[in-house]
Amino acid sequence: MSNENKDWAGAPKNASSDGEFVRDTNYITDRIVADVPAGSDPIPQDDDTFHWPVEAGRYRLIAARACPWAHRTVITRRLLGLEDVISLGLTGPTHDVRSWTFDLDPGKVDPVLGIPRLQDAYFNRFPDYPRGITVPAIVEESSGKVVTNDYPSITIDFSLEWKQFHREGAPELYPEHLREEMAPVMKRIFTEVNNGVYRTGFAGSQEAHNEAYERLWVALDWLEERLSTRRYLMGDHITEADIRFYPTLIRFDAVYYSHFKCSRNKITEMPNLWGYLRDLFQTPGFGDTTDFAEIKEHYFVVHEEVNPTQIIPAGPDLSGLMSAHGREKLGGSPFAKGTTLPGPVPAGEQVKNPEPFQV
Amino acid sequence: MSNENKDWAGAPKNASSDGEFVRDTNYITDRIVADVPAGSDPIPQDDDTFHWPVEAGRYRLIAARACPWAHRTVITRRLLGLEDVISLGLTGPTHDVRSWTFDLDPGKVDPVLGIPRLQDAYFNRFPDYPRGITVPAIVEESSGKVVTNDYPSITIDFSLEWKQFHREGAPELYPEHLREEMAPVMKRIFTEVNNGVYRTGFAGSQEAHNEAYERLWVALDWLEERLSTRRYLMGDHITEADIRFYPTLIRFDAVYYSHFKCSRNKITEMPNLWGYLRDLFQTPGFGDTTDFAEIKEHYFVVHEEVNPTQIIPAGPDLSGLMSAHGREKLGGSPFAKGTTLPGPVPAGEQVKNPEPFQV
Repeated sequence: MSNENKDWAGAPKNASSDGEFVRDTNYITDRIVADVPAGSDPIPQDDDTFHWPVEAGRYRLIAARACPWAHRTVITRRLLGLEDVISLGLTGPTHDVRSWTFDLDPGKVDPVLGIPRLQDAYFNRFPDYPRGITVPAIVEESSGKVVTNDYPSITIDFSLEWKQFHREGAPELYPEHLREEMAPVMKRIFTEVNNGVYRTGFAGSQEAHNEAYERLWVALDWLEERLSTRRYLMGDHITEADIRFYPTLIRFDAVYYSHFKCSRNKITEMPNLWGYLRDLFQTPGFGDTTDFAEIKEHYFVVHEEVNPTQIIPAGPDLSGLMSAHGREKLGGSPFAKGTTLPGPVPAGEQVKNPEPFQV
Repeated sequence: MSNENKDWAGAPKNASSDGEFVRDTNYITDRIVADVPAGSDPIPQDDDTFHWPVEAGRYRLIAARACPWAHRTVITRRLLGLEDVISLGLTGPTHDVRSWTFDLDPGKVDPVLGIPRLQDAYFNRFPDYPRGITVPAIVEESSGKVVTNDYPSITIDFSLEWKQFHREGAPELYPEHLREEMAPVMKRIFTEVNNGVYRTGFAGSQEAHNEAYERLWVALDWLEERLSTRRYLMGDHITEADIRFYPTLIRFDAVYYSHFKCSRNKITEMPNLWGYLRDLFQTPGFGDTTDFAEIKEHYFVVHEEVNPTQIIPAGPDLSGLMSAHGREKLGGSPFAKGTTLPGPVPAGEQVKNPEPFQV
């Protein structure tokens, strides 16, 4: 795979010959698992990946507030209370053609890894790493090497492999009895919504745009309907499925509606999606990890091929996110009985640009 | 004034040194008036303009469905029933760097003037015409020369100078007793709203955008408030002020919200503006002269500096425009007692791309 085919850093437009946006889905698929003893070296697997041990203090999660794929991992880490066990490094919202950079940190280097650009951690692992420098990435602090950037397994592994380090009262985000039902829901959200907004916005032809738009809205109408009788995607409580949907939904009116031309309706015009979004936004772990300024700056500045002026819209008015959502009428609660909400955001991890209604 | 400083055809971005969009307001300000005898040659005035006689069959109004400034004249001509007296030529929605073109007409020439590009009519009048080739323009059919492109006086003169040719039951759109009150309202709509959306979208810097956006929304909030107690801008009946506001308002959610980054709220989110817009849209002369396909094509294709992909958003869903507006509760009626609504759109003048809800 050539450098041309980058996913997230670098040229975000991977158009196929018929103009459809195609996401690079090749990742570093090492995993961090519970059945490798702490202190071990990574253990090679039959599929050429490695398994690394679950171990407190060994890893650093590198995310960007802007990035929806990284946002999932930040929410999950917080809901499960892994903050003291896995440290968090945050890149700035924009990146140059090759890498996300730590331009918001003092001296513009990550204070733990000591590197200015995330690509340094990729090159520490693979000196000729040919693909996109993406967030989220988990980096081994001692070696400065990327362990994995495979976001779907990062959040599942946080839930299942890191269990011994979960906070007291942590929710079950990937409950065994729901997994079979979750799989097609999460798959459809991935292909139709998480990717659907990119497919709509980066379409290389009018026809590809129109098709992507129709396809996106078929899925959003399905979700609107699904959420008419369920407080959360899988029923009464928040799960991994909600964590995978939220980062796209919270960026929709602020970015995707206009920047990616997904504009059939705003989420504020979809009663169930809008109630659901507010419900999540007002739950610790969701709204308090959402930085609209960084989100907007990322998209409107980085995608010059869509927004050559790089001017960031002053709108929209997002203050309605704090209004009463009325979803209690469907029953359910954020997490099951016996679990608790996470406490306050740890010092130093608050979003840098809270909106007035987030304070 | 150089060719660089074009208004509507050609580069639409006239930014001042601080990045603020500045509209070229130099026009051909000849007028067509009632006190010059029909059949006369134009009569020179002290200010170097000419006065031309009101005369049935002498003039052709050239408009573009896409253009909000031209849209005013098309609405006014129809409300007053001047269709048999002043013919209508329509350019296509896009134009090249120099001119609007008659690319929708058979053979791509205007069937009356016999020219492929509107600039030909400007050059017939002024061979070295240095400014933008703008619509609306009134052209003398026999000579093929542009008489005026001064849109504010075109609509007022339709009302006051062409009175002898108004249809029976034509409304008074510029009533004498309201003119003093109308002047500041129309001025504020022009500078803050009609131009405000362009100022917001063509801002050359982030600061200029933010300022233009604030300024636009101060005005829209004022109009939202004004329309809370008045069915139309000047009270109980439609006037020239409404005709000047409508073309911007009907383009807002379809274009300006996203393309010009005016996105604090959609008009659908502003209860009084939304009711008012639907009230007008459902009145003959307004919705039936509105071609959303041409409007969207114009902006998203012509302004490559804002939308380099030239892809036209499939959205938004505009079907709500036909929903009940509820404005009758404020009293009033489209036109005063003794006047009538215009009849059906004349054959050949229907919009080419009616939305399903317009049929």
